Amino acid sequence: MTREQYERVLPPLRDALLSAQKELQDRKTCALAVIVTGTPTAGRSEIVNQFLEWLDPKRVRVHALEKLRAISHAWPTLWRYWNALPARGEIAFFFRGWYEDYMYPALRHPRKAQREKPRAVERIRQLEAMLQRDGVQVLKLHLTVSREVQDERIRKLRADKLTRWRVTHEERWLARHYAELQRASEACIRLTGQPGAEWHVIDGSDPQARSFAAGSILLDALERGLRKQALPSPKSARPAAKLRSVQAEFRGRHAGKPVVDENYDVELEQLRGRFALLTRRGKFRKHGAVFVFEGMDAAGKGGAIRRLTGALDARQYTVVPVAAPSAEELSYPYLWRFWRHVPRRGEIAIFDRSWYGRVLVERVRGFAAPRDWQRAYDEINEFERQLIEHGLIVHKFWLSVSREEQLRRFRERDNDKLKRFKVDPEDWANRRHYGEYQLAAREMIRRTSTDDARWTVVEADDKKYARLKVLQTVCESIERTLD
Amino acid sequence: MTREQYERVLPPLRDALLSAQKELQDRKTCALAVIVTGTPTAGRSEIVNQFLEWLDPKRVRVHALEKLRAISHAWPTLWRYWNALPARGEIAFFFRGWYEDYMYPALRHPRKAQREKPRAVERIRQLEAMLQRDGVQVLKLHLTVSREVQDERIRKLRADKLTRWRVTHEERWLARHYAELQRASEACIRLTGQPGAEWHVIDGSDPQARSFAAGSILLDALERGLRKQALPSPKSARPAAKLRSVQAEFRGRHAGKPVVDENYDVELEQLRGRFALLTRRGKFRKHGAVFVFEGMDAAGKGGAIRRLTGALDARQYTVVPVAAPSAEELSYPYLWRFWRHVPRRGEIAIFDRSWYGRVLVERVRGFAAPRDWQRAYDEINEFERQLIEHGLIVHKFWLSVSREEQLRRFRERDNDKLKRFKVDPEDWANRRHYGEYQLAAREMIRRTSTDDARWTVVEADDKKYARLKVLQTVCESIERTLD
Repeated sequence: MTREQYERVLPPLRDALLSAQKELQDRKTCALAVIVTGTPTAGRSEIVNQFLEWLDPKRVRVHALEKLRAISHAWPTLWRYWNALPARGEIAFFFRGWYEDYMYPALRHPRKAQREKPRAVERIRQLEAMLQRDGVQVLKLHLTVSREVQDERIRKLRADKLTRWRVTHEERWLARHYAELQRASEACIRLTGQPGAEWHVIDGSDPQARSFAAGSILLDALERGLRKQALPSPKSARPAAKLRSVQAEFRGRHAGKPVVDENYDVELEQLRGRFALLTRRGKFRKHGAVFVFEGMDAAGKGGAIRRLTGALDARQYTVVPVAAPSAEELSYPYLWRFWRHVPRRGEIAIFDRSWYGRVLVERVRGFAAPRDWQRAYDEINEFERQLIEHGLIVHKFWLSVSREEQLRRFRERDNDKLKRFKVDPEDWANRRHYGEYQLAAREMIRRTSTDDARWTVVEADDKKYARLKVLQTVCESIERTLD
Repeated sequence: MTREQYERVLPPLRDALLSAQKELQDRKTCALAVIVTGTPTAGRSEIVNQFLEWLDPKRVRVHALEKLRAISHAWPTLWRYWNALPARGEIAFFFRGWYEDYMYPALRHPRKAQREKPRAVERIRQLEAMLQRDGVQVLKLHLTVSREVQDERIRKLRADKLTRWRVTHEERWLARHYAELQRASEACIRLTGQPGAEWHVIDGSDPQARSFAAGSILLDALERGLRKQALPSPKSARPAAKLRSVQAEFRGRHAGKPVVDENYDVELEQLRGRFALLTRRGKFRKHGAVFVFEGMDAAGKGGAIRRLTGALDARQYTVVPVAAPSAEELSYPYLWRFWRHVPRRGEIAIFDRSWYGRVLVERVRGFAAPRDWQRAYDEINEFERQLIEHGLIVHKFWLSVSREEQLRRFRERDNDKLKRFKVDPEDWANRRHYGEYQLAAREMIRRTSTDDARWTVVEADDKKYARLKVLQTVCESIERTLD
């Protein structure tokens, strides 16, 4: 590309980019995450700096997340990327991004990388597919130059005292391993490209052609993003997707064996002690746990949770109450607000309601479109799988209360003004969908029970029975992992 | 307190607590942060669990932040508490909270604690005073029992196989050091109590009396919090506080020595190299840096920042563009949104506008009440001091552009549609207050220049001169610390 050509085509491109960015900010149809990888000296930083000059930089974030050992080891691999995702209307550039943990280790530790590859690829593919469906456009730019150009550029930079500093140790190492990097990149690009998240390989030899190419690709991605539907406002419920039959009830039992009062306190204290001691074992520090509580209103989730936490050192756990998403939360992919609460290694997070809201309340009440809750099962399984791969113990409880017992509890709460906060009109509305909830719960349990992330249905009409069963199950679940 | 008495007084208390919590959620007049400390077995967890039963637990967070070495060492001491602060309308309980780093180390490392005490106390006092003024009520509960009661309770718990697990190693250690803990607590309470953030010492011998006392104190705090003024909506500007004279201009020079074009590129590259190599030194990893850029619109902040970042590995820095606070940010104390971006040890954060907004735009345009921007100078000095104590290098730049040059740049930008995003009506509005900004800047520099956190006024009418001066100053600032 000659200088003349460049100066002719560039202004309209920059103009269109600025307009598209502005429109994206205003209409918030999606977020844009741009991954930049490549060969040394091919121009990764230059491209990003270029964009910072062309776009309004106040609306752009640049992330280069280093593999900080102490921190990244405390959380599952993708945690820090989730935390850095752009919200709708925003653009974020990621140097290497989630390929940091895949494309580059392959060079330094080829055997380990080879072993972990299938899962690493799957994780990335699932992540990018989900992001795309949840309103984050993913754009992947890979910049390359030939070995000759690379070596010549490095030689020139290093020959001049003024520019010598520009070549870092790491770049020199990568430059020496040109062929391996090339091979690893090609494999990575082949395995992780998929419709909507294609790789764009850009030749970095000519700086102007490279800038123009990257700019055009970005513009194209922005324009595709602008054609997406804007986010529906949080309150507009779509007409509820009728479940197959509102009559057929979930065949879960609601009542367990009655608990004799005098045994309850002793058993409770015994189980709590067992639970407490389990969480104090050295080995538990290498794991940590996520416990999920779901169930109809008044099923006794709060009470069961308090029986658990009563056994723990407060420094070891967090209870995460989950309510309807806020406007900020809605501007991110669905799982974003749960990733933020994933516990550090060795700690416990207890979710009072959870990501299953999508296939329960959002499905039943029509707050999520059918295509969104239908894909949620797989996305949730993948999410929990990542937690488990990281070592976390995951166990899920469905507290099953009968329609009659629920009514009794609602009435009791309505009559007791100290419990008044526990029932609101929304709860009564949910109750009218009791049968549909049962069906949704049944499908949820069927489709998201895995060996490592089990559901336990807890017969919750008798609170004492339910609490003991929860504690017992939690203990067994931890023992299964630790022993 | 007899059981009868308790059962008579409790329901009205719980009722009032629930109502107050609900009102707080609705009116969002303030946030409530409750610190709980005390003697082993005096009932800290019991009190917090009690509150979780009495209040709507969905609106309550419990934090017990362990001193995790890898993480806490990466950021200044108070960073993790800032990240856990409740927003307006919320209640958060902190086990030990920011006393974790003060009251308890005094027991284990008395000499070190003694040495650091004056500063630790000052930090806490300043924090609590600021929180209170920024809409976070701080309530501090200290639970005690006599040595006899403590020992007897521990003996009883340990004698029973069922409850033995309840006594942890740490509690036994603390119990053995009863006298020392008592002494340390008393000193701490004496030194850190201040109007609006008093300590409440509660006798934990009688569980019912203790519950009732804690409940009454919480209710009182909630009611005081409800009498606070609700947060003004973000857009309602108060009439601007006229500065002493809008005529008198800041006597900063706007023009530096002109830079000869052919020297510019060489000098720039030299300085960038010097800067890059400085940040790669092993010793820099133990520090990290915060660079702040302030100046009128079109003073050249963005350009100067890009000349800095062009020298850095993308993994080492973040640029934080600061705009008007969002609704979420307004629901926290003023400095909250800046604490979130404090860099990890060894990293660099570059703020494009900053916490000085309060004494610049918010002061000049009347977005902050006079009492709020007036106290900001001290709060900012304390904030930066904490960064410096942690090892961060802090340097601040005021890019000083003359009224005439600013006008020229505005016009140029207006005529260049590729720079159109750079000037908006708000910028023209700010320009009309040019003189007042100059005065505000002068006062800001005078009141917040400290030996370790200096301001450099950069004559910015010549962009090249300004960029070189910034780079030069940054290098000198780092060298001063590292050498």
